[in-house]
Amino acid sequence: MELEFWYEFASTYSYLTVMRIEDVAAREGISVRWRPFLLGPIFAAQGWNDSPFNIYPAKGRYMWRDLERRANAYGLPFRRPTRFPRNGLLAARTAVVASDEGWCPSFTRAVFRANFVEDREIGDAAVVKEILAEIGRVGDEALARAGADDVKHALRAQTEKAQALGIFGAPSFLAGDELFWGDDHLEEAITWLRERKGDRASP
Amino acid sequence: MELEFWYEFASTYSYLTVMRIEDVAAREGISVRWRPFLLGPIFAAQGWNDSPFNIYPAKGRYMWRDLERRANAYGLPFRRPTRFPRNGLLAARTAVVASDEGWCPSFTRAVFRANFVEDREIGDAAVVKEILAEIGRVGDEALARAGADDVKHALRAQTEKAQALGIFGAPSFLAGDELFWGDDHLEEAITWLRERKGDRASP
Repeated sequence: MELEFWYEFASTYSYLTVMRIEDVAAREGISVRWRPFLLGPIFAAQGWNDSPFNIYPAKGRYMWRDLERRANAYGLPFRRPTRFPRNGLLAARTAVVASDEGWCPSFTRAVFRANFVEDREIGDAAVVKEILAEIGRVGDEALARAGADDVKHALRAQTEKAQALGIFGAPSFLAGDELFWGDDHLEEAITWLRERKGDRASP
Repeated sequence: MELEFWYEFASTYSYLTVMRIEDVAAREGISVRWRPFLLGPIFAAQGWNDSPFNIYPAKGRYMWRDLERRANAYGLPFRRPTRFPRNGLLAARTAVVASDEGWCPSFTRAVFRANFVEDREIGDAAVVKEILAEIGRVGDEALARAGADDVKHALRAQTEKAQALGIFGAPSFLAGDELFWGDDHLEEAITWLRERKGDRASP
């Protein structure tokens, strides 16, 4: 049984899920397919050229407080970044390479830690290269791959697929045909997947 | 210990909370203060002249499916209204009267049932009058009170207070000074209230 985990590197609530999804899923015998995509084009289609948390200040104030509360409840470190949102394009392209090569989860966690714990500028190639080194990768090679046309196309296709699935925010989860939105619905998505599997197994 | 429950009669997710909050709170020894307010002026201040679920169709499609799923999980009846959102102004004014007179919860549940189970036009005075009769009230008296200036002012003041508290959607919960948003965070708000009370009681 596999849960699809759709996330965007700039997304605050994705941070919570990135740090905890593998433990939560493993406890339930579920594997996770990591699906990086870009929210920018999806937001742009809704007429937003910035994060809704910046466009709507009351929503933004609530989100920062809520994120702090929830990180605390999960026992996760968290520091509010001095810049938000950071550009996740290069990280997302690199994550496409990482998916092909089997190191997407560790790379993703390192980037989210850099942004939401260490307040580093994940939009900069130099920072992404440092992060790659931290997880034992050769930065120049991965970044060269990340800049290739096939990788750009793959990320664009993944983002179009997200939109076609009805995804409008991150994190989102696809459990079979069923979509769940928000870190606070991770457990519900997993339960849904388990119960539907149960249905299929019954006579 | 008292949880403030802020809700709007047109709000879909408020339906879930309205139908379950008293049981959930009672199990935890918490009482509930019902706080009807209007989302319209708060949305208008954000530049929206309609529900965001209508303005952003992907969000809307998700909400209707999610609502159905969650109502089902709670064992609550639910039928998607043929019109959304319905005007909750008269119901909210009547709820202010009901608060003064001590019958706000039963009135509120009856209105939400009318809208989200029976698909009735809760914006019409005739329907509100029927609902009042269903809960054993004299409709003409309550509606006359609901049209009085002091009631209009009280609802306006309540809506301004919501905005001042940073409320931007419904349902919202105030647990002490702490704001929680969404039916899916009701339990978290109650836990917060209980644990803070625990803090205060310790030496």
